Amino acid sequence: MSAGINHYKTDLREIFFTLFEQFGVGQLLGQAPFEAWGPDEAKAVLEATYRFAKEVLGPLNASADREGCRVENGSVLTPKGFKEAWKQLYEQGFKTVGVSTDHGGQGGPMMLQMAVEEMLCGANTAFNMYPGLAYGAAEVLAECGTPEQKHQYVEKMQNGTWGGTMCLTEPQAGSDVGAAKSTARRNPDGTYNIRGTKIFISAGDHDLTENIIHLVLARVEGASVGTKGLSLFIVPKLRLNADGSPGQPNDVTLGSIEHKMGINGSATCVLNFGENDACVGELVGSVEHVGMSQMFKLMNGARIAVGTQGVALASAAYYNALDYAKERKQGGNFTKWKDPSSPRVPIIEHPDVRRMLLEMKSHVEGIRALIFKLAMHTDKARQLAGKDDDKAAYHRGQVEVLTPLVKAYGSDQAFRLCAQAIQIYGGAGFCKDYPVEQYCRDSKIFSIYEGTNHIQAMDLVGRKLGQAGGSYFQQFMEDVGGFIEANRDHKTFGTEVKALAAAQEGLMSSAMALLGWSQDPAKTQLIPLSANRFLQMMSEVAVGWLLLDAAVLAEKSMAGLSESNPDRAFYEGKKWSALWYARNVLPTVEQSARLMALEDASPMDIPDAAFSAV
Amino acid sequence: MSAGINHYKTDLREIFFTLFEQFGVGQLLGQAPFEAWGPDEAKAVLEATYRFAKEVLGPLNASADREGCRVENGSVLTPKGFKEAWKQLYEQGFKTVGVSTDHGGQGGPMMLQMAVEEMLCGANTAFNMYPGLAYGAAEVLAECGTPEQKHQYVEKMQNGTWGGTMCLTEPQAGSDVGAAKSTARRNPDGTYNIRGTKIFISAGDHDLTENIIHLVLARVEGASVGTKGLSLFIVPKLRLNADGSPGQPNDVTLGSIEHKMGINGSATCVLNFGENDACVGELVGSVEHVGMSQMFKLMNGARIAVGTQGVALASAAYYNALDYAKERKQGGNFTKWKDPSSPRVPIIEHPDVRRMLLEMKSHVEGIRALIFKLAMHTDKARQLAGKDDDKAAYHRGQVEVLTPLVKAYGSDQAFRLCAQAIQIYGGAGFCKDYPVEQYCRDSKIFSIYEGTNHIQAMDLVGRKLGQAGGSYFQQFMEDVGGFIEANRDHKTFGTEVKALAAAQEGLMSSAMALLGWSQDPAKTQLIPLSANRFLQMMSEVAVGWLLLDAAVLAEKSMAGLSESNPDRAFYEGKKWSALWYARNVLPTVEQSARLMALEDASPMDIPDAAFSAV
Repeated sequence: MSAGINHYKTDLREIFFTLFEQFGVGQLLGQAPFEAWGPDEAKAVLEATYRFAKEVLGPLNASADREGCRVENGSVLTPKGFKEAWKQLYEQGFKTVGVSTDHGGQGGPMMLQMAVEEMLCGANTAFNMYPGLAYGAAEVLAECGTPEQKHQYVEKMQNGTWGGTMCLTEPQAGSDVGAAKSTARRNPDGTYNIRGTKIFISAGDHDLTENIIHLVLARVEGASVGTKGLSLFIVPKLRLNADGSPGQPNDVTLGSIEHKMGINGSATCVLNFGENDACVGELVGSVEHVGMSQMFKLMNGARIAVGTQGVALASAAYYNALDYAKERKQGGNFTKWKDPSSPRVPIIEHPDVRRMLLEMKSHVEGIRALIFKLAMHTDKARQLAGKDDDKAAYHRGQVEVLTPLVKAYGSDQAFRLCAQAIQIYGGAGFCKDYPVEQYCRDSKIFSIYEGTNHIQAMDLVGRKLGQAGGSYFQQFMEDVGGFIEANRDHKTFGTEVKALAAAQEGLMSSAMALLGWSQDPAKTQLIPLSANRFLQMMSEVAVGWLLLDAAVLAEKSMAGLSESNPDRAFYEGKKWSALWYARNVLPTVEQSARLMALEDASPMDIPDAAFSAV
Repeated sequence: MSAGINHYKTDLREIFFTLFEQFGVGQLLGQAPFEAWGPDEAKAVLEATYRFAKEVLGPLNASADREGCRVENGSVLTPKGFKEAWKQLYEQGFKTVGVSTDHGGQGGPMMLQMAVEEMLCGANTAFNMYPGLAYGAAEVLAECGTPEQKHQYVEKMQNGTWGGTMCLTEPQAGSDVGAAKSTARRNPDGTYNIRGTKIFISAGDHDLTENIIHLVLARVEGASVGTKGLSLFIVPKLRLNADGSPGQPNDVTLGSIEHKMGINGSATCVLNFGENDACVGELVGSVEHVGMSQMFKLMNGARIAVGTQGVALASAAYYNALDYAKERKQGGNFTKWKDPSSPRVPIIEHPDVRRMLLEMKSHVEGIRALIFKLAMHTDKARQLAGKDDDKAAYHRGQVEVLTPLVKAYGSDQAFRLCAQAIQIYGGAGFCKDYPVEQYCRDSKIFSIYEGTNHIQAMDLVGRKLGQAGGSYFQQFMEDVGGFIEANRDHKTFGTEVKALAAAQEGLMSSAMALLGWSQDPAKTQLIPLSANRFLQMMSEVAVGWLLLDAAVLAEKSMAGLSESNPDRAFYEGKKWSALWYARNVLPTVEQSARLMALEDASPMDIPDAAFSAV
């Protein structure tokens, strides 16, 4: 099982457009805290990442899927090639683009880091789980750790010396994190004795680093039930010596690894802490019982990262399907379908293949824009903090409200679009000779982990909509409204901007319905029943808006170009992405609003016994 | 890799309801050509099939998926247990329920055979490919073969002695069957010399039978291009001796088998015919150039069988997810979500889980009803042939018009619902310990093989809608309309029947739009662009109708039952299946009609170069 050929492909022109032209990352660069960066550096990093993705990660994607991980002598062995890829990833610095210079990073904007991540994920989703978890865990310590903890752990976790994990889930505590039974007993020396079993731990064990730093949620004896009684602990796989180097094993044992539908190169572990009552943990920070809010620093980032995984695979599936459709000949042009002697044509000429391709293109570009927009808000919030706190607060609010959309819509659509790519390939797509069936399998987990998509939807309707007195949602609506006002009579896109306006009205009426239900005990059950639908509606409004915004911009940029300029076709493509979405998706938002208004509670009204006679 | 535990489950009460109460199979039994059958025999066969599915096929489903097929010495070895299962399948007669008594079958109605097939497929989709292909090929010979051919082949293919295949696809000829390059040269003795390569041949080679009878589409030298120049040939793997027993190998060699996303226990073969110029074939029937229409005897049956595969897996996924949701405890009841000390509840109490379960239930029951309805039309057409030819023609017409719906809607929804089952399980559903991830992988091929779902949609809008002067479609609409008229003011379901009426109006307006486009050369491209959408709309009208029909019936049957009768809960369940679908799916038909009316041609308008800058 050796490395195969690379299948990963993307379109850097599209990524550059979204980063630089649509969201103006160039204007952020050169100014604190991104003073070390200019547009040329940013573009060079993206080009280097793409090379690395194609040359190193891509060729390992299928082979790692077939080989999977193995357990030998109680340790996980990762697929062939992962060790060398890990080394190169960190040597070339792709994981530290967005890491603070305080911790050995390059201090770049999140927009850039997201674009880098998209390529790493798209080339090899399973591999990128390991550095992704290390990064996430390090960020928690960078934000919540004591000065000593920051010094001891963060840089080594960010530079690839050590791995990291987040250990929340237990057999009885998945979505219900607060049901965790793992315990922490105070030791006289200030450390804690950790006991418990954690499951579904991604990167829970592997052979890529000399040590793995587990972040473990556990309950200090006597703490209250539920999430409020949980504390977060640093549990290194190997305890640290006085000089900070890894020493003796820390009574963390690998129970088993899961055999899964996809991301087979990523080890999903059962970990047993303290089987011999000798597992030593260190409290993150200095206060007990705040573990859940600390873990949420990681969770928020992880949720955005899952959206990125989604767009990464959907995008890889799109460009592969596009190339296949250009090469594969089958049938005659549909205008000559009655003539069997007409020349056989590439399947991209067939209307339904074009429809599937444009549907993929438009979703991929729209979801990418949504993710980069969220990243832009993060970067601007950082840049404006202390300078214009009101504006910074606005940007932070948009990050809050967009995060569940990015995670849930990004992942739901990813799976659907990867399946659509299989359909474009036909029978070939079902075979392992082509990459799309793996993309489809890999992407199925995205709607589940880091909080199921229903949890995202409940986060949106139960928390984010009302956050800061509802102002985050209101500001989102104002941003969309501002675009509509400015472009309602746009010469090219006026009709579609009006479709966006109608969709936004539908969304607003559904938001009002949710508010009404929350004040009527007989109707509160309609909130969880409608939450997923509402999240999808809001995502569609957001994506439709950003696609039209890009199209308006692209039309302007196109105006000055000569006929022979290759950018003309690119800008033309942005137009069709927006038009397709506005005509085929935006109208469904109003329809969804009508469905919500029906207040159907049938799933609650059906008695349990009526689900089946057996 | 030995047989594991069974995961297959269904609800015979629901199958009995649909067969006997909704579609009255009981009234067909006891009369020619089903005079040998009574209700008790039919029920006994279904109960025996379910036992066999659970005890023999189910335990082999996961193990066959993991093991896959192997090639040794140029032959396919099927997974462990398949040989014994094959033997028992035929000994117990499950494959011959619907086979004519002329060929050693039991002469039962198609409705019964479909219900049997659903259980065989649901328990082990991959295994059931082998007998399915043998059956299909035998039916072609039973209908199109010469008397000698019928005598020589059919019974042995129907009783499990020999296997069978359909060999259409070639590397350059998939959806475009007419591009086949395989050739047939007349031999002096009346046989043909066959040459060519066929790919994606399900059951193309295996170790289950002493011989395999391939039906091969090839072009007699000098025949015209396209499908009209194709003839169909019998090509046995082993040539037959004078006494009909298998003799010398027939120059059919196995090129390779595919490695696939799913149905791994089913061998998907590349077959080379005549590599040594020594492949002897026999023309099916006595006329050349009619191969395509002969093959379509098989294709029509195969398309219905794919719909059955779809409902089989969606149903298995539903009952598994339902049981999991009743057993798995996670979180508190949503009315007490703020109290972490409230008791943990089975996840079936969570609104979104109930929503997913009811969505699955309602689709599964509705699609099953659609398939059994189609089978009922087949049975009635047979029963009335020669007695009431007008009525028989009506029934045959409904089979024509419903076939693409059953294949495409059944398969699209199957994949979507199996993925939804994974979501109900959460992370566990992504793991191979549970059956749903395999159901999802297995079901992805259904939308592709036996004519992609777009081919089904084009068959519907390009052929079936206008067939017999449009009367088949018109009669379908009248059947739906008759139900609406009779139940428009139904006390319980009146609102939902009106939703069906609105959906039907939407469907009719879209049918009119298609008609208009077909007469305007500038708009014909809108037909393939909208075909899939129209097929889905018509399927939703059909399924909504049949669910409401079942609900009306169930309410009547419930009226007389005592409170303690367990059938009450079952009938109550039929009501909620219909209500959920009518409130959540039927309104989208009108929306789809509005989208079609927009006449969006963006997929055709976008230039090829605008799909990507690379």
